[in-house]
Amino acid sequence: MAGQPHNPEMQVSPGAAALPLSGVRVLDLSQALAGPFGSRIFGDLGAEVLKIEQPGVGDSSRRFPPYFLKGESAYFLGMNRNKKGLTLNLKSEKGKEIFRKLVRVSDVVYENFRPGVMDRLGLDYGALKEMYPRIIYCSISGFGTSGPLKDRPAFDGMIQAMGGAMSVTGFKGGPPALQGFPMGDLGGGLYAVQGVLAALYAREQTGLGQEISISLLDVQIALQAHVGQLFLVSGKVPQPIGSSHETNVPIGAFQTRDGSYFQISCPTQKFYENLAQVISRLDGFGDLPCDPRFATPELRIKHKAELDEILAKAFATRGPEEWAEALDEGQVPSAKVNNLAEALSNPQVLHRKMVVEQDHPVSGKYKSAGSPIKMTQTENETFNPAPLLGQHNQEVLTGLLDYSPEEVEGFKREGVI
Amino acid sequence: MAGQPHNPEMQVSPGAAALPLSGVRVLDLSQALAGPFGSRIFGDLGAEVLKIEQPGVGDSSRRFPPYFLKGESAYFLGMNRNKKGLTLNLKSEKGKEIFRKLVRVSDVVYENFRPGVMDRLGLDYGALKEMYPRIIYCSISGFGTSGPLKDRPAFDGMIQAMGGAMSVTGFKGGPPALQGFPMGDLGGGLYAVQGVLAALYAREQTGLGQEISISLLDVQIALQAHVGQLFLVSGKVPQPIGSSHETNVPIGAFQTRDGSYFQISCPTQKFYENLAQVISRLDGFGDLPCDPRFATPELRIKHKAELDEILAKAFATRGPEEWAEALDEGQVPSAKVNNLAEALSNPQVLHRKMVVEQDHPVSGKYKSAGSPIKMTQTENETFNPAPLLGQHNQEVLTGLLDYSPEEVEGFKREGVI
Repeated sequence: MAGQPHNPEMQVSPGAAALPLSGVRVLDLSQALAGPFGSRIFGDLGAEVLKIEQPGVGDSSRRFPPYFLKGESAYFLGMNRNKKGLTLNLKSEKGKEIFRKLVRVSDVVYENFRPGVMDRLGLDYGALKEMYPRIIYCSISGFGTSGPLKDRPAFDGMIQAMGGAMSVTGFKGGPPALQGFPMGDLGGGLYAVQGVLAALYAREQTGLGQEISISLLDVQIALQAHVGQLFLVSGKVPQPIGSSHETNVPIGAFQTRDGSYFQISCPTQKFYENLAQVISRLDGFGDLPCDPRFATPELRIKHKAELDEILAKAFATRGPEEWAEALDEGQVPSAKVNNLAEALSNPQVLHRKMVVEQDHPVSGKYKSAGSPIKMTQTENETFNPAPLLGQHNQEVLTGLLDYSPEEVEGFKREGVI
Repeated sequence: MAGQPHNPEMQVSPGAAALPLSGVRVLDLSQALAGPFGSRIFGDLGAEVLKIEQPGVGDSSRRFPPYFLKGESAYFLGMNRNKKGLTLNLKSEKGKEIFRKLVRVSDVVYENFRPGVMDRLGLDYGALKEMYPRIIYCSISGFGTSGPLKDRPAFDGMIQAMGGAMSVTGFKGGPPALQGFPMGDLGGGLYAVQGVLAALYAREQTGLGQEISISLLDVQIALQAHVGQLFLVSGKVPQPIGSSHETNVPIGAFQTRDGSYFQISCPTQKFYENLAQVISRLDGFGDLPCDPRFATPELRIKHKAELDEILAKAFATRGPEEWAEALDEGQVPSAKVNNLAEALSNPQVLHRKMVVEQDHPVSGKYKSAGSPIKMTQTENETFNPAPLLGQHNQEVLTGLLDYSPEEVEGFKREGVI
């Protein structure tokens, strides 16, 4: 925000490095998951995120079950930390006027309405840029702002189905499965953040904002990564991968004596040899290191089923602690298949401060995932709780804009906020 | 790069908007997937990405099976478009010297070595920032640069196992499954790009670069999103989701008469009612809209198994085209579970230019996924092919740096490049 110190409360004391997005203000109209997951990253990086919600209603995720902390949805609390809460009826003329005033002192408008909603409100990029050419406008929608499917609703599961993720998740011959993390939604937020950050950087060079359109389906195509790439050059349709890999053998989850699973990853000759050595110490498995069927990567691909069967038998003879010790000592890349309780109590995860606490005025203290963007100079250690509906109305309207407390009271009475 | 026009070939003609990262130069030491998937985004956004590889060896993914286009790995070709190729032996003194000269005219150093590798080379952030405080340094590793697990190797499957994704992917009572897209790796690249872009923006304000450390495991914790959030507030360990959802019913994949699947997403009352109407037109399903067991969201959660059974029976009576028509007409959010061939030929995907072509000097023309960051002013329509090993040595060393062609020949003889 060169030359526009419009966010004085974020000035830091001399000597301390400001957070990377200090001074950036985001008007966040997004709801549910794809949008808010992304805009949480802006807040974590130090931007001032003004979450704008419909008066009396708010983000639909404020009502998402199943867990509520003193009436506040845990889902909402998690996805909306480090944001401020503002209500605004964008259908009213006064609401539009306030929104335009906010645009004038902001850097980014960020929304995940269906295409056309902002146009009908007269608040689309085309209308806003006339007034404020520096504004960056990012929309996230199921299918983007143009094309035959643009008006369709979209949910995470549909997007994972359409984009091909479900077709490669699960086990061969079985029904398709969803990826357990909602990547249909999350991917949209992640790329939206990249688009906005690139546009912020570009604006430093040009002085101009621009429009970014993120389609959840487009993002799935990008996330196909090498899986899609291999299809595009070969025309061979990939099958569900289970816990394994077609061409790097052995990779997979094997069940131990107590029912828990270990995922091993031995894509290289060296790692396979390490694994075979560890397994050979078990009774009846002494021949594995010299078994000619598994001597090279090509042979292991050919005899994958037989190797997997041997490994399944071997893993069933010991419990997870014994395997952890033996595999670590033998330098075999492997990991217990953790449930979320195990994942979130891993000492490495705690060391990296990936579980942080917020203190909410109504719900009290609650934990959420930390930021995985660790910056040595400017890491954010402040995790403010998700806002109550309209919690910062007064602060924003009288502090950032120049309305009087009486005017704000009037807006409230008239349903503008 | 305020005031440093060190990249004159990227100047654009007056009137045309430069790509958002025009003028940004990234020294990309990363290999395999997590790193290159991220740095491809820099290139797509207009940065000059110099991919630096070991002379005579190169990125290990140059040899990744199973498909090769005239000797070039399809995997490598896909993940490394819009990058230039430079070889450099970083263990030689001359190689280090050249690297330092490159740092002087670059913005970002980006690597995914195991922690400690760059320190041993004397090229870690601490050493580089002394010479060039504007440099931004981003490392991606399995577990980050500190903590009890920092020195461990990491592969996508292990990361998905440790971070909890496998525990929620697959079907209840069955073995854990990997997410079909390699989110253990991809997530690292996606957050690394965010960190670098945020640091680039911050540098415009402060004049200083900074260090960013991305841990693949940290990223998994972030990608747990609301799944992790609900665990953190409730202590209830989530189970594999299959193709369904515990608290939004009905959601799931149902098999049609020809064996293909449809994913339906009816998390709201209205969408459920639409679905029940469509289903009720089938013989024997006329009662569904009035069935009291499924009248409210709460009742549908309670009677999920019975509802899923009815839907499974109903879907088996018709083929996918009939379902597509009926569900669209009835306004039921749904999508065929596409394989990759179907996903990549969807008219919407093609309309959005999500399949693009590159022309490689050896391999010829090949397709890859487009960029999902659609910027109306500055979208990149140029997709250069992945580089040959050392393809741009001459250009970079004599053009960007000031070595003579004779010196470059000498570097080659001595194994420096």
